[in-house]
Amino acid sequence: MSKTNPARGMRDFLPADVRKREYVIGIIKEVYESYGFEPLETPAVENLETLMGKYGEEGNQLIFKILKRGEKLVQSAGFSPSERDESRTLNELSDLALRYDLTVPLARVVAHHRNELPKFFKRYQIQPVWRADRPARGRFREFYQCDVDAIGSSSMTIEAELIMAVTAILRRLGFADFTIRLNHREVLADILDTAGVPAEKHGDALVAIDKLDKIGAEGVAKELAERGIGEAAATMLLDIFEQTQKIVDDGKEVNRTIVSNLVNIVSNEVLTDIGHVLTFAGDCPVQLDPSLARGLSYYTGAIFEITVPDLAGSLGGGGRYDGLIGMFGKEQIPACGFSLGLERILVVMEERRMFPPEIADSTPADVMVTIWSEETIAESLKLAAELRSAGLRVTVYPEPDKFGKQMKYADQINVPYVAVLGETEIAESKVTLKNMQTGEQKTFIREEAARNIK
Amino acid sequence: MSKTNPARGMRDFLPADVRKREYVIGIIKEVYESYGFEPLETPAVENLETLMGKYGEEGNQLIFKILKRGEKLVQSAGFSPSERDESRTLNELSDLALRYDLTVPLARVVAHHRNELPKFFKRYQIQPVWRADRPARGRFREFYQCDVDAIGSSSMTIEAELIMAVTAILRRLGFADFTIRLNHREVLADILDTAGVPAEKHGDALVAIDKLDKIGAEGVAKELAERGIGEAAATMLLDIFEQTQKIVDDGKEVNRTIVSNLVNIVSNEVLTDIGHVLTFAGDCPVQLDPSLARGLSYYTGAIFEITVPDLAGSLGGGGRYDGLIGMFGKEQIPACGFSLGLERILVVMEERRMFPPEIADSTPADVMVTIWSEETIAESLKLAAELRSAGLRVTVYPEPDKFGKQMKYADQINVPYVAVLGETEIAESKVTLKNMQTGEQKTFIREEAARNIK
Repeated sequence: MSKTNPARGMRDFLPADVRKREYVIGIIKEVYESYGFEPLETPAVENLETLMGKYGEEGNQLIFKILKRGEKLVQSAGFSPSERDESRTLNELSDLALRYDLTVPLARVVAHHRNELPKFFKRYQIQPVWRADRPARGRFREFYQCDVDAIGSSSMTIEAELIMAVTAILRRLGFADFTIRLNHREVLADILDTAGVPAEKHGDALVAIDKLDKIGAEGVAKELAERGIGEAAATMLLDIFEQTQKIVDDGKEVNRTIVSNLVNIVSNEVLTDIGHVLTFAGDCPVQLDPSLARGLSYYTGAIFEITVPDLAGSLGGGGRYDGLIGMFGKEQIPACGFSLGLERILVVMEERRMFPPEIADSTPADVMVTIWSEETIAESLKLAAELRSAGLRVTVYPEPDKFGKQMKYADQINVPYVAVLGETEIAESKVTLKNMQTGEQKTFIREEAARNIK
Repeated sequence: MSKTNPARGMRDFLPADVRKREYVIGIIKEVYESYGFEPLETPAVENLETLMGKYGEEGNQLIFKILKRGEKLVQSAGFSPSERDESRTLNELSDLALRYDLTVPLARVVAHHRNELPKFFKRYQIQPVWRADRPARGRFREFYQCDVDAIGSSSMTIEAELIMAVTAILRRLGFADFTIRLNHREVLADILDTAGVPAEKHGDALVAIDKLDKIGAEGVAKELAERGIGEAAATMLLDIFEQTQKIVDDGKEVNRTIVSNLVNIVSNEVLTDIGHVLTFAGDCPVQLDPSLARGLSYYTGAIFEITVPDLAGSLGGGGRYDGLIGMFGKEQIPACGFSLGLERILVVMEERRMFPPEIADSTPADVMVTIWSEETIAESLKLAAELRSAGLRVTVYPEPDKFGKQMKYADQINVPYVAVLGETEIAESKVTLKNMQTGEQKTFIREEAARNIK
């Protein structure tokens, strides 16, 4: 007897789960399409070399690698143990890997299909990704990303439109209290320069700063020290973050104050760009945050992160990555995007009970047709077909059975109506409808049954 | 510079592809839901032991296996080469695998969640599966299966309803010339007994018979001999298939004739069951075919296969498998299902040009808004938002650019309308709409623009 649990960190989605997931995905698709974004899908499996080296050292480790097959595996496994080291083992044994995010495959697709794609390619992609992470509460090894990206323009109109589209999605889902934190990699670079962090240590500093929310200023100071950044620079850095973020009130004034605090640190050009985004996306809850760092190394410009008060971590994030597509093709093509985490959104919506009743209390059918006896099966199937052609979702009890058992099953699957088709009803071309909520029972001529259920 | 092609046997789906796939999937879902089937999703990755041994020896070989990670891999790779053999290598190096079909995961889920699921569980599942097959025309290593299964009943009502649902789907998609071939594993067993094939050779014989369509009677005779089935039995077997299939006319008569030819070979009980399916699904193009074998070993009762004249191979198939769920749980639960091959359906629909025009000639947006200058970006974004709130899909040219270039891009993405917002239009709260098909241009007040596009 085989084990029946899904693999570690993976989940089965029963019908009630799938319906909630599809409700959220449906709204995401609809809004992205209203902004002119088009759907793209890429394979779950990529060549290992496509993924390796794109996500940093930690990322490489978390990629699920697929074993070579047949002869190739036997040949590759024929090296002697003395030669073996871990990275060598990987190269010898694996040639394919599971998709780790949707951004690297997009960059590959854009480089590969450049001539078939429009000059500006606006795409969304909603697919699972896999990471060999240690499973924890809310952290899975298979999860969905809902990505939206615009390829081919450096204009800050793109950043603004992405923010507007994401805002529209979250509002349609019923979120009223989210914040889109905005920063720019050059703001961070200028702050690091001002604080005296040497250029070659910027990457280290960003990794530490990225944890400010989680471990606080003290924790970051400690990590900066561990990563070889001098105490003076670290103190000044944290000071600048404190100063530039001094908040005057809760409205638009906040962003203006932060910008003015940055004037002597950050170049005018970048501040103008940020100003444009803030103006264009004026209706969106954007909050400038000079300490926002984002983990991924491929970002080159604006970076975003969406937070809600009751969730540690973010609902999603993104940024501009003008250098990534060039890793796959001759041409350097500017790009910017957002990724929403489906599971994060679902967790908050579940806790806050944000699903509309038709999703939260869904049933497999509008009506169940009973089966009276072996001899009347054909007639029950015919009634079901009639009700379906009137637009109803109809399930048929699958076999002749005691009436009580059939009603018990109808209760179990929570159908609102049962259509009873006994010998009397069949003889008179009628059907008895039972309203499962009120218990009320009424007999109709067959043609009127569907209308009465609706 | 990394390679940009997708992995061997895998495909990228650009927007036009995704739209066609989603059109077909949408109809499949809608019909299955109208029959009371509920959505289920399972992980792409399963424990290796869940899959091994369920698909026969050939199947085991075609399963994509995932390499163990980190410490576990290093430990497992530490065996000496003298001990190594292929199956051992696999067990040492791999613990997970990619989903190979949707039936085995369903059996696992049913055994695992028995108490949460209704007594009869009717589910559909539309997800990709992966097979390390040699890629060929129309054969991919990642492809979608659209499965529908009913769990918990042995009644032939199930077979009939599945046939009716699949028929409804294919008709909705526009197929008029498909045939659902029907057989029963016991019909095959009784024919094999009558021909004198010993019981322990039934499996071998079925593998050979499964190829009748591809390699003809002569080829099957040869393969039967190779598999150690005596010449007398082989000749009689092929004779019975010829006799029982003698076709009298094109109508219902065919099935009746076949049944009458089977009377002395097959038990009454099975023929009665088959008769029920033929009666219940009377409106469906079902064709009894005593030689239909189906490759998979887990079928125990009725088996189906859907064919169209212009496609070698089938659009889908299925059958009853009353023993599979018991491999995962204490309880033996009857089950029956159908699997449609999305790619097969798409290939035929593409060749026959069966897609409706709104799918075949789709565009990313109903209208594109131009950008006049840096100063008018905010106004263009505002117009786009107005048009969206009127229900239109709107894309905005992402940056100030020469008018000619903006129009060229609009042409490239095939939008039907362009909304020109120049300085004059802004000053007068108007917008100029250009119909991209006729070239006609007209200026409207902003409030009326959306209505004119619709």
